[in-house]
Amino acid sequence: MYKLSIDAMSGDLGSSIVVEACLSFMKSHNDVELYVTGKSEELEKLKHERIHIIEARDTIPMDAGIMSVRRKKDSSMVKAVTLANEGTTDGAVSCGSTGAFYTSAMLFMKRLEGIEKSCLMAILPTYNEKGVMIMDVGANAENTPEQLHEFAIMGHIYAQYMRGINNPKIALLNIGSESKKGDETHQKAYQLLAADEQINFIGNIEGRDMLNGDCDVIVTDGFSGNIALKSCEGTAITLMKLMKESLMSSWKTKFGAIFVKDTLYELKDRFDYKSVGGALMMGFSKPVVKAHGASNAKAFGNAMELAYQMVKNDVVGKMKEGLEA
Amino acid sequence: MYKLSIDAMSGDLGSSIVVEACLSFMKSHNDVELYVTGKSEELEKLKHERIHIIEARDTIPMDAGIMSVRRKKDSSMVKAVTLANEGTTDGAVSCGSTGAFYTSAMLFMKRLEGIEKSCLMAILPTYNEKGVMIMDVGANAENTPEQLHEFAIMGHIYAQYMRGINNPKIALLNIGSESKKGDETHQKAYQLLAADEQINFIGNIEGRDMLNGDCDVIVTDGFSGNIALKSCEGTAITLMKLMKESLMSSWKTKFGAIFVKDTLYELKDRFDYKSVGGALMMGFSKPVVKAHGASNAKAFGNAMELAYQMVKNDVVGKMKEGLEA
Repeated sequence: MYKLSIDAMSGDLGSSIVVEACLSFMKSHNDVELYVTGKSEELEKLKHERIHIIEARDTIPMDAGIMSVRRKKDSSMVKAVTLANEGTTDGAVSCGSTGAFYTSAMLFMKRLEGIEKSCLMAILPTYNEKGVMIMDVGANAENTPEQLHEFAIMGHIYAQYMRGINNPKIALLNIGSESKKGDETHQKAYQLLAADEQINFIGNIEGRDMLNGDCDVIVTDGFSGNIALKSCEGTAITLMKLMKESLMSSWKTKFGAIFVKDTLYELKDRFDYKSVGGALMMGFSKPVVKAHGASNAKAFGNAMELAYQMVKNDVVGKMKEGLEA
Repeated sequence: MYKLSIDAMSGDLGSSIVVEACLSFMKSHNDVELYVTGKSEELEKLKHERIHIIEARDTIPMDAGIMSVRRKKDSSMVKAVTLANEGTTDGAVSCGSTGAFYTSAMLFMKRLEGIEKSCLMAILPTYNEKGVMIMDVGANAENTPEQLHEFAIMGHIYAQYMRGINNPKIALLNIGSESKKGDETHQKAYQLLAADEQINFIGNIEGRDMLNGDCDVIVTDGFSGNIALKSCEGTAITLMKLMKESLMSSWKTKFGAIFVKDTLYELKDRFDYKSVGGALMMGFSKPVVKAHGASNAKAFGNAMELAYQMVKNDVVGKMKEGLEA
């Protein structure tokens, strides 16, 4: 039986969508037990022999400063993390603030053995439908070459076991393609990645080529990874807003829009970073999955499924093996 | 009389577009003398009392490694830079490779007094029509807080005198808006910028907000500035390619495209980074302006106009004053 802890309280839309997601999840999974943290009076509908309610009176709101996590040991979020850390469950899911959830894991969960720094991974939409993993997207302000190497190994395992990509192509985000480009950290990281035979390192990648779909995992330091992710996001938002305004700019374009708006809105949705699926936390001893703060029940269910698959495939165990190799 | 040195040979399209641009420029400017470097047999049409041909037998091709510049002292590019450095002219224009031209300036031109590191500036398209200056976009792999402060001062002067922006808003590219965000370099840079009363520092800006048009100058270290610029570029290219494919995907969309394609192609042109105008080199003792490698005569003329305005407004002199203040 796989066990997941579920933070029911921290999302923007309250506990009801989590309740709905849990009930629906239990129908399709008969090998799972849930430990749902929150106020029991809001969780009364969760009557199921494989669902346990864990009372937690405190809530960490979406706009809470990440430092407040320290004082919120009785919150549904910290309790969900703690249950996983102490082994009651195999992983934790929350739709609270990314910063607070990541901080909860930093404070209340052991790091994966062999990992110096945990990180945040996001999947960006690409020209083809594959998408590309990028990590770290901002958990750290600075990284060492060794840490970037660890990110690459975790990315390699995740891409292989969770995204079904055989021998995933891994690149290092840098300011040029030659091995000597960038600062000392990136030059050394290049050497470490190139020397590691268990991964398929294809060299440096520039910001311009991130979305062309040619690579599966982009390794970055937390600073430039965050800048890269948000630059892509900002450009997509700006262009889509201008595209919409262009289509509404005259009677002629409004008429044309009738015929093209469906396909263009599909494109908009695909590049809507709000729906990209949040960031995944990597480098902890248990899977820690963040669903969107504005998640509906379906999105929350997807996050639960992700955590379930990570547990079932023992992705964290495989990362540990990869780091030891 | 203002004097410009013009590299006639280094562009993708050869010397003829430079010849055309020079002749047209002389018609509209009677206070300029040109020193055109290149093979005299290709410059025979440049018969004008205020145009001097400076023989240069060597050419630096667009795909030359930047290290080759060292050995190319007789090239049209290095000669154009040298003429400006020794005071024969007041500034230099080339449409050769950015890397080679920047290296030529690094090797053969004095830095502006008070500047530790020169840098590259690009102007990105924004949601409104203003555009935003971003610097450094990749001349340096690492920067100190003091260097970022120098970039801000140069940006302030340039925005004011060349872009006509009164009290330009200056922001620091970082991974969060709070002053304590980022690594030590960015935290210290924040303090230096905030303490400088001659500039209008509005705080940190995140990648997501770069193109929203709210600020005039974004100061970045060369590494993350390069990543940011190219991430924006890559996203714009990817989206525009997908938009075009969407419009061609069915008979229905093809019909609609007839009415919307003009306005969408305008948008595409606006975000076409090839036409954004190349990068400007900042921090040298004379204006050094790079026109596009694939420049036509009009684009080359624009670069000449930019150099002319920088000389006429003594922008470099004003930067020097700003750095001394």
